Amino acid sequence: MEKIKEKIQQSFKNQGLMKTLNAQLDEVENGRVKITCAFSEALTQQHGFFHAGVAATIIDSACGYAALTLMPENTEVLTVEFKINFMKPAKTDKLIAVGKVLNSGKTLTICEGFVYDSKEEKLIAKMQATMIVIQY
Amino acid sequence: MEKIKEKIQQSFKNQGLMKTLNAQLDEVENGRVKITCAFSEALTQQHGFFHAGVAATIIDSACGYAALTLMPENTEVLTVEFKINFMKPAKTDKLIAVGKVLNSGKTLTICEGFVYDSKEEKLIAKMQATMIVIQY
Amino acid sequence: MEKIKEKIQQSFKNQGLMKTLNAQLDEVENGRVKITCAFSEALTQQHGFFHAGVAATIIDSACGYAALTLMPENTEVLTVEFKINFMKPAKTDKLIAVGKVLNSGKTLTICEGFVYDSKEEKLIAKMQATMIVIQY
Amino acid sequence: MEKIKEKIQQSFKNQGLMKTLNAQLDEVENGRVKITCAFSEALTQQHGFFHAGVAATIIDSACGYAALTLMPENTEVLTVEFKINFMKPAKTDKLIAVGKVLNSGKTLTICEGFVYDSKEEKLIAKMQATMIVIQY
Repeated sequence: MEKIKEKIQQSFKNQGLMKTLNAQLDEVENGRVKITCAFSEALTQQHGFFHAGVAATIIDSACGYAALTLMPENTEVLTVEFKINFMKPAKTDKLIAVGKVLNSGKTLTICEGFVYDSKEEKLIAKMQATMIVIQY
Repeated sequence: MEKIKEKIQQSFKNQGLMKTLNAQLDEVENGRVKITCAFSEALTQQHGFFHAGVAATIIDSACGYAALTLMPENTEVLTVEFKINFMKPAKTDKLIAVGKVLNSGKTLTICEGFVYDSKEEKLIAKMQATMIVIQY
Repeated sequence: MEKIKEKIQQSFKNQGLMKTLNAQLDEVENGRVKITCAFSEALTQQHGFFHAGVAATIIDSACGYAALTLMPENTEVLTVEFKINFMKPAKTDKLIAVGKVLNSGKTLTICEGFVYDSKEEKLIAKMQATMIVIQY
Repeated sequence: MEKIKEKIQQSFKNQGLMKTLNAQLDEVENGRVKITCAFSEALTQQHGFFHAGVAATIIDSACGYAALTLMPENTEVLTVEFKINFMKPAKTDKLIAVGKVLNSGKTLTICEGFVYDSKEEKLIAKMQATMIVIQY
């Protein structure tokens, strides 16, 4: 698990967009990853709240890394597709995105993702995603 | 149509995230909107290509504004949900996102979105989205 | 709740397709509905297991009715869209579909659906759906 | 192409559910398959129109077979997931489902599906689906 954590931390650091969004990789567990993102005017939609694209981006990453925790060494993960419902306006000072593995197969891993407000009380968005393992 | 164009241009300018991504609102037509985004290291995933989140964000915006072109004055649009398939690696110097209305109803508008490479030859991602009108 | 149960039972009986599939409305609770369907050769795909379309149909109905339990009287529910992942082959003598409300709004209700094998041990499919209230 | 047509026709005949729905395999071309289904009271929802599950089932099959036309011999196709929007009430005497390949990869094929009324004028539903090749 330590090896996988390091691999994911390194991969996260290599993502230019995560730096741009100022997103943090907060937790990496078996089949579960948490990424958070503090509010900034650089991340808003036209009404001044978090843009849905920020929520989609960090929860996609959290789902992908959650899938990766259950994949063999020497593999990478790619997003095949995802679907996301936006349920509440993202009016909060921090987005908390939790990705979890629903089913881990040899080729495909199915994940679900939850985006909460800063108190983890309000479910802002819900994702269902398909990830694919890449041998390298 | 001129009024709607101005409204959409103003809304686009108010999106902090679009500035952060350096995205451009290129075309606004009835039921069709194009948004583009030039490559930068600030927008990458771990392998140095465009992050899928950038593609998802600009095509979601293009679909939303495409829906808005067919909605009454004094309304706004919100994304209910979207689903996106990533089909090719986003190795290109510019993403071109085209959102189109498939069906415009009184409450809901169904859109599809296409993300192409800079030559508009390669279909990188495809979205299907549900938008809702908001009276204000 | 009794009134809503009766309304849902009546609606279920009026669905010709539920008779054709020999599906049963097993449980109706606040925000949660269970529909089951016993195996028959009439419901198979080319390898002799349950057709994915049967799973999709009964879990869509379970999600729709789950949404309806939280809607006002004198309303109906329609499926706006759903997304479903098929995770395991549907090799079982009975499909058990459980639909649950994730978020109940004035116009839209977001649901998630689970399709299990007859022992409710194996998660065969997972749905995420958007429902709309219809005033009549 | 003739070999693939025969393989698909045989597979279609082996689907018990297609017989139950009285669905017809109407056209098989490279990357495009049409399946139709005549109205019957056995296929209705509570208001007496086609059940959404019938539309979802036949367009899923059409997309799967469309994917199969572009896959190597000695392979089969499975639905990984699909997302479908229902745009108009399915008030028609025949559903016409057309599945098309959007992108055909080595492992995954992305398809889109269109469900029309009997005149092929009204777009009733739209699907976006991910299919996987199975070696046997």
